[in-house]
Amino acid sequence: MLTLYDYLDSGNGYKIRLLLALLNRPYRWVEVDILSGATRQPAFLAKNPNGRIPTLQLEDGTCLAESDAILWYLGEGTRFVPPDPLGRAQVLQWMFFEQYSHEPYVATPRFIKRHLSSDSPRRAELPRRLEQGRAALAVMEAHLATRPFFVTERYTIADIALYAYTHVADEGGLALAPYSHVRSWLARVAAEPAHVPLTRRP
Amino acid sequence: MLTLYDYLDSGNGYKIRLLLALLNRPYRWVEVDILSGATRQPAFLAKNPNGRIPTLQLEDGTCLAESDAILWYLGEGTRFVPPDPLGRAQVLQWMFFEQYSHEPYVATPRFIKRHLSSDSPRRAELPRRLEQGRAALAVMEAHLATRPFFVTERYTIADIALYAYTHVADEGGLALAPYSHVRSWLARVAAEPAHVPLTRRP
Repeated sequence: MLTLYDYLDSGNGYKIRLLLALLNRPYRWVEVDILSGATRQPAFLAKNPNGRIPTLQLEDGTCLAESDAILWYLGEGTRFVPPDPLGRAQVLQWMFFEQYSHEPYVATPRFIKRHLSSDSPRRAELPRRLEQGRAALAVMEAHLATRPFFVTERYTIADIALYAYTHVADEGGLALAPYSHVRSWLARVAAEPAHVPLTRRP
Repeated sequence: MLTLYDYLDSGNGYKIRLLLALLNRPYRWVEVDILSGATRQPAFLAKNPNGRIPTLQLEDGTCLAESDAILWYLGEGTRFVPPDPLGRAQVLQWMFFEQYSHEPYVATPRFIKRHLSSDSPRRAELPRRLEQGRAALAVMEAHLATRPFFVTERYTIADIALYAYTHVADEGGLALAPYSHVRSWLARVAAEPAHVPLTRRP
């Protein structure tokens, strides 16, 4: 059986929990306390030398890291990854956008606000990060003005990757009120049968 | 014919130039002056609303963004992308590692040093970025201690993605001397027939 090393409040981990729920695929769930440094301990580093959750352990013991690579591994061959080369590349384009232009500016402020002390020096990063977060949301808003989902008119793993932290962006200080197309898309994603919320412990 | 919108000094653009050379695939090359803000002009934003090079325009006019997604599009079905699901996911794992844990800390210091003024306030970012750059290089060093390439014992697009900025890491202030396995791997990549250097204008 698959084993997912994860942390409940992580949007990156939630991506995998959400896809596994949509696929109705059973798995073992192991919570790793990232706040106490458990991902920096030798036992965890043996699974993922980059010291991050989520990490997926396959039946043969092989460990796979990086949330969007895990989404691809689980999604290829299902309805959540398009079969055509251009559609596949566009799914990856939005997943790389998510990791490079979105996650550091939408997810990291949420982490700083929720998990670091009120006098953490990292709070000084918030204004610049939030400014770039608004830029990422503006790119998404323009793209979704004429489409129901990010790629090929259908719900794909690109939507899962971007939903994970966008739907809780307000917890990091990014109000979603100005982004009506993003909000409609969030509602479409949440309406998918078998959808599970971020806070649901597997 | 494919058209690549690019900037010669960009390692992200170089990834595409390198793969196209290895595939011996002809293309039109259009240099975009990122330093003067050309990627923020309406004509370019119509091709890539996120305002970044490289952007690849396909024969039918469709534009594809994100360097590692473009590598995937061009590489799928060739010897540079493994055919098996696990190998494919591992290639993506290392490409997401590159964009999230490597590029901001290896490439961005190089950009700050080469293209921003000596009194730019962004120079204050260098110590923390370089510290994380060394962490990324350490992860690569450990992985390459027992393998010739990142995935499946063969040269793949994961190697191209990581080579692009690693081989010029010293230009950003990261000395490669402590990383002997990384240096041996760089030499293997550069020895590939049809390899081209970053500085070669197409």
